[in-house]
Amino acid sequence: MKLYRKKRIELVVESACAKAIIDMIDAAGAKGYTVVQDVAGKGNRGIRDAMHLTGLFRNTLIIVVAAEDIALRIVERSQTLLENYAGIVTLSDVEVVRDEHF
Amino acid sequence: MKLYRKKRIELVVESACAKAIIDMIDAAGAKGYTVVQDVAGKGNRGIRDAMHLTGLFRNTLIIVVAAEDIALRIVERSQTLLENYAGIVTLSDVEVVRDEHF
Amino acid sequence: MKLYRKKRIELVVESACAKAIIDMIDAAGAKGYTVVQDVAGKGNRGIRDAMHLTGLFRNTLIIVVAAEDIALRIVERSQTLLENYAGIVTLSDVEVVRDEHF
Repeated sequence: MKLYRKKRIELVVESACAKAIIDMIDAAGAKGYTVVQDVAGKGNRGIRDAMHLTGLFRNTLIIVVAAEDIALRIVERSQTLLENYAGIVTLSDVEVVRDEHF
Repeated sequence: MKLYRKKRIELVVESACAKAIIDMIDAAGAKGYTVVQDVAGKGNRGIRDAMHLTGLFRNTLIIVVAAEDIALRIVERSQTLLENYAGIVTLSDVEVVRDEHF
Repeated sequence: MKLYRKKRIELVVESACAKAIIDMIDAAGAKGYTVVQDVAGKGNRGIRDAMHLTGLFRNTLIIVVAAEDIALRIVERSQTLLENYAGIVTLSDVEVVRDEHF
């Protein structure tokens, strides 16, 4: 079984800007992403709790697996989009089997 | 504190085949897994949205931490199970404290 | 774009002890964390299913990104807190853009 190296990007963003982030991910060339809605958390703008706040303050967790060049583009562009929002963006190494899907 | 190297497998699969994937994970020898139900996403079969589609089209995120041999077995077997389904499977390195739990 | 190396800690714990774990994460010096409530799973204490069990037996997934010293402190302290609970704690390498947020 051959494995291919890709990058995994994990973004935790205010749900209010999740749509803009996802549109950017699409435009950057990623073939797919996973979205976990209504996560809670404490970030650089204070506590965000899925239980007690309105949609505006909920966080969304987005996972993208992509080739390195696309991944770096997503990380870079996310910084502009998140300038006025709370957001955590991390990049890490993963391996996949189906090279052509990413 | 001693840390042990294990593999983390992240699978995002159509919820319709999540049960078959979990049964396979058990049979492959993993001692545990975590399941996040009703995630949304866009994969190699188009957009899947937790808000608008029925259970049949929702995705499920499954995380497994296991020794390398078990992890590779899970990745390999997942390919057969996912042949007719959308699915993303990634493998990465993690460290754990409790060696005996994996 | 400069990237900085940090550690990502992923904890899957019984929801009954999630509050204690989060308080510990705060006390350990982490600037943020993400919480995914009501995840299901099978761990070293048997099957935990978000569908069928009460709040006491549900699991919570917590993600922390932090500098290495803080991350190791969190992993170490989690072992004491989880002594009587089911829990999976993994540590892995990630890169971030905003060094000052972690």
